[in-house]
Amino acid sequence: MHSHDSPDRLDWLDAHYRAMPPVAALALAPAAFDGAELVLRAPLAANVNDKGCAFGGSLVSLMTLAGWGLVTARLRGAGAEADVFVADSQVRYRAPLYADLEARARIEGDVPAEAMLAQLRQDGRVAVQVAARVCLPEGGDAVRMQARYVAIAKGGR
Amino acid sequence: MHSHDSPDRLDWLDAHYRAMPPVAALALAPAAFDGAELVLRAPLAANVNDKGCAFGGSLVSLMTLAGWGLVTARLRGAGAEADVFVADSQVRYRAPLYADLEARARIEGDVPAEAMLAQLRQDGRVAVQVAARVCLPEGGDAVRMQARYVAIAKGGR
Repeated sequence: MHSHDSPDRLDWLDAHYRAMPPVAALALAPAAFDGAELVLRAPLAANVNDKGCAFGGSLVSLMTLAGWGLVTARLRGAGAEADVFVADSQVRYRAPLYADLEARARIEGDVPAEAMLAQLRQDGRVAVQVAARVCLPEGGDAVRMQARYVAIAKGGR
Repeated sequence: MHSHDSPDRLDWLDAHYRAMPPVAALALAPAAFDGAELVLRAPLAANVNDKGCAFGGSLVSLMTLAGWGLVTARLRGAGAEADVFVADSQVRYRAPLYADLEARARIEGDVPAEAMLAQLRQDGRVAVQVAARVCLPEGGDAVRMQARYVAIAKGGR
């Protein structure tokens, strides 16, 4: 296990999320990060729709934030400071979720952080594809997302 | 102008949105509906990210809710009660928005409400494509979404 396995090491991410009013409303918390996958959790009560299941906007927000946190955490872990943006996303809603939300995000193709860092340093920017999902407690996924994020080096190259 | 042009006629939609905690957090309000396009507005302050512009999750939520409201309003206007779900969506983030949010949704191909109603009555369900966007005050779009919604007749056919 790497030292960044501990959720305690995600305090910076938690503080970042909580500083944004619409994100604070989701009542989310970073749950785990093993260097490859970032997990965020949020209670159903703060994210429920009129049908008693998770609101689609909350599901997308949680996955989008998990992807953002993942890309940012990987670059930070490699020693880079960058501004990270989501560029586009495709979402498939598969089944209603009647439980707390847990979003998992990972880089598609398991691109090493070192490769992301090298491209960031060479080009001043790097684009990565992220796959995210929110699982159902009974197995399978409530929703899946593929999204492209762009990181731009702070202060140029 | 049709009688449903007035935002006053959207009280049911406003109440529906406000009953959901994550939607109430967006502080949105229905602004206009002319039978073809539904407009929702939300203040930047409740939806701002760490960069001082609109949070991507809020933009997607607002567009998704505008699409949901549009499909529901069109079917209601045609006399049908249906449960409406978003099935999938594609989002392109184009430019940061440093102003209040205004999402506009319309049915792609301008399918008449009567055609939607006929299929709902025949098959018990109808799927429609919605195009939504959030405009920039200086012109152009901050974000665009295409999404498929499915309406299922209440109480069978």
